[in-house]
Amino acid sequence: MPHGNPITLTPVAVIRTPFRDRIETPHQPVVSADPSPEPEMAQPGPRAPVLATIEFAEWVPPESLQDLEGFDRVWLIYHLHRSEGWRARVKPPRGPRRARGLFATRSPHRPNPIGLSCVRLVSVDAPGRRVVVADVDLLDGTPILDLKPYVPYADAFPDARAGWVDEVDAAVGRLTAPGPKRPVRARAREVPEI
Amino acid sequence: MPHGNPITLTPVAVIRTPFRDRIETPHQPVVSADPSPEPEMAQPGPRAPVLATIEFAEWVPPESLQDLEGFDRVWLIYHLHRSEGWRARVKPPRGPRRARGLFATRSPHRPNPIGLSCVRLVSVDAPGRRVVVADVDLLDGTPILDLKPYVPYADAFPDARAGWVDEVDAAVGRLTAPGPKRPVRARAREVPEI
Repeated sequence: MPHGNPITLTPVAVIRTPFRDRIETPHQPVVSADPSPEPEMAQPGPRAPVLATIEFAEWVPPESLQDLEGFDRVWLIYHLHRSEGWRARVKPPRGPRRARGLFATRSPHRPNPIGLSCVRLVSVDAPGRRVVVADVDLLDGTPILDLKPYVPYADAFPDARAGWVDEVDAAVGRLTAPGPKRPVRARAREVPEI
Repeated sequence: MPHGNPITLTPVAVIRTPFRDRIETPHQPVVSADPSPEPEMAQPGPRAPVLATIEFAEWVPPESLQDLEGFDRVWLIYHLHRSEGWRARVKPPRGPRRARGLFATRSPHRPNPIGLSCVRLVSVDAPGRRVVVADVDLLDGTPILDLKPYVPYADAFPDARAGWVDEVDAAVGRLTAPGPKRPVRARAREVPEI
């Protein structure tokens, strides 16, 4: 087995979010917005952030959540539990619908359905084993495999070139600018997947 | 099972790096440097980057690696295969050796031993199923579970506060500034874990 044996992981937590269906779930945390208002009531412009609660399993000691409060952001690594199979090339829903190599995309349909999202930390209730976060793009009930603090010196590279994503942005305008926008339900078809 | 069933993952690749032992492996990619020179020959200042090769399994179609070239950086999500158990609180090797809650650290000893590193993309040989990267902090032979493109709008938050890490930096000087430094072997005890 030159590439390693299969490994088995047990989720440490589950996340509760307002997103019940894939179609209304944003494709990256920074473009998320609360989906509760009806589409016809949607107003353009900034909206209330989407709050979500991470509920840790009872076997996770509360002490393991200490010292988290001071971080602005955390990484969530999670099981894309609704992913069904994968293909070598995928058509991300942005710009010209050209197929791209799977590993050059953030498509949820991957050999190992692991998701990675940087979310905003809102509050930590260590004794209650609950962590509230904002700017989420996770489906309700998603199993969480790990949570790590966001550390800019290791994680933030704002000037990194992003290949075909940059090209599409340059060609069609900056679709991917950060910040909550219109409610997801109203613009699900416009939200870039990557 | 309110927190999700166990999931089984099969590595998609293995990485070949110059780091054979944990003690000589940097604790974050941005502080890595080639360990080959003997410590007594170590010179301060920038050094050659550490190159590593990701070898994908034969069942991974070469087309899945297309379109990667244009990205400066990629995320590696991997199995910390030498991790042995975990504790709720750990003492990161930086600043005053105070115990911190596990989930507020990037310690490799976690309930699910999953590592996350942002590395520099050097070259892609899709037909050969090989990807060369630099600035790695992975042990030789580490099983790779996923590779995702680094996309600044979703991943880069240079101004995010980093809690106790910021506090330690402020108290003892900026230990964690990016960039290769002295050879790892000579300074393993000084390299911050987080």
